Amino acid sequence: MRNYKMTIGYDGTRYQGWQKNKNASGTIQDKLDETLSRMLEEPIKVIASGRTDKGAHALGQVINFHTSQTFDTDDLKHKLMSVLPEDIVIYSCETADESFHARFHAKSKRYRYTLWRQSMEPALFNRKYVTCIESLPDIEKMRLGASYFIGDHDFKGFSSDKTKKSTLRRVERVTISEEGAAIHIDVVGSGFLYNMVRIMVGSLYEIGLGDRKPDTILMALASGDRQEAGATMPPEGLCLMEVTY
Amino acid sequence: MRNYKMTIGYDGTRYQGWQKNKNASGTIQDKLDETLSRMLEEPIKVIASGRTDKGAHALGQVINFHTSQTFDTDDLKHKLMSVLPEDIVIYSCETADESFHARFHAKSKRYRYTLWRQSMEPALFNRKYVTCIESLPDIEKMRLGASYFIGDHDFKGFSSDKTKKSTLRRVERVTISEEGAAIHIDVVGSGFLYNMVRIMVGSLYEIGLGDRKPDTILMALASGDRQEAGATMPPEGLCLMEVTY
Repeated sequence: MRNYKMTIGYDGTRYQGWQKNKNASGTIQDKLDETLSRMLEEPIKVIASGRTDKGAHALGQVINFHTSQTFDTDDLKHKLMSVLPEDIVIYSCETADESFHARFHAKSKRYRYTLWRQSMEPALFNRKYVTCIESLPDIEKMRLGASYFIGDHDFKGFSSDKTKKSTLRRVERVTISEEGAAIHIDVVGSGFLYNMVRIMVGSLYEIGLGDRKPDTILMALASGDRQEAGATMPPEGLCLMEVTY
Repeated sequence: MRNYKMTIGYDGTRYQGWQKNKNASGTIQDKLDETLSRMLEEPIKVIASGRTDKGAHALGQVINFHTSQTFDTDDLKHKLMSVLPEDIVIYSCETADESFHARFHAKSKRYRYTLWRQSMEPALFNRKYVTCIESLPDIEKMRLGASYFIGDHDFKGFSSDKTKKSTLRRVERVTISEEGAAIHIDVVGSGFLYNMVRIMVGSLYEIGLGDRKPDTILMALASGDRQEAGATMPPEGLCLMEVTY
């Protein structure tokens, strides 16, 4: 069996997220499985580095899949691009070791969450890829709050998923940068729980507005109580940027 | 009567262009007229610097309209933004002299047409705002071709409109710049005929591909024959950037 690894991007607006839960159809995984299975005339099941939420995007998702056939990687990339809808793109395609697994072997991921200060400039062409905010948060306060996330913590309070056995995760870096009306919050970590980045950003935004103190992050991490963390921000500002192996 | 001047932007994807021709409804002008008339409870008719094509965009369209009421310009801007759909935005609002006319007083306009080299990077978040091309044109050849447009010319051969009395226009500047996979073609001129920028870009693209010689621009300008100019490029890569008064 051949194992192909691809770096892909997608506009998540019209999908039910990366993967089905229960009865939902219309996921990005569905679309790729169907398209590849039809194209290669054999059942294909792609594996991603991890799920992305309904409505969230990716510019650097990594997937792999096995096939009995051998392809030139450039041909495979172009052939697949020509049959995929315009909101899913392939950035690169390479042959991987047969044992390579996009999820199990992922070392770290970078997510970017973009807040858009609507009062500085209304969002237009980028409106599906940012979360518009009315108030101007204090960036330095947000940076202070962000510093409390760094390290190994139990992120139970920063997740909407009650089913995970282990909620221990390592956050390596949280960088907050400004670019025009955008505030980018880049989070690098070993792995992320369901809604974790969106709740981290919700907490930081509330800190930036002065609605909560920076050290409440520490308290929410210590208690593991979802009620002590901030609101879950909407998915459209979230984008999976990079996966490292 | 008060006269308000606004700089606006829009994503033209789902509209029939700026203005109705004949039976078409669903234009950007319709949407603004309706929204303002309902909001101000008096019949409002906005005047723009000029029409933009069906499917083309604007980041710097200028409009004005008269009303019997007096508003704080910031209030008016925010109130209007709150009722407009998310694909039409107001960048600024100011009080203008009663005689100010967005079309008659426009001195020059800048349009940007963006070609996207799909083989360098597939378009994703920007896919509605660029025109994807498969081949890589020679930029220097395009620049040479562009130089022939500068000055006062009869642009009859570069228009799809047969009804205009005068087809004389002045092109002040054509600048071709590269930004990643994008090739931006910025055209500044006193005014533009219907489809003029799209036909200019079509001609330059054919020059870049080697399908036509740079000096064929001169011949098409001299003959005024639409058949001697290049193809009309699609509208989605076109954006009205700026109007000066």
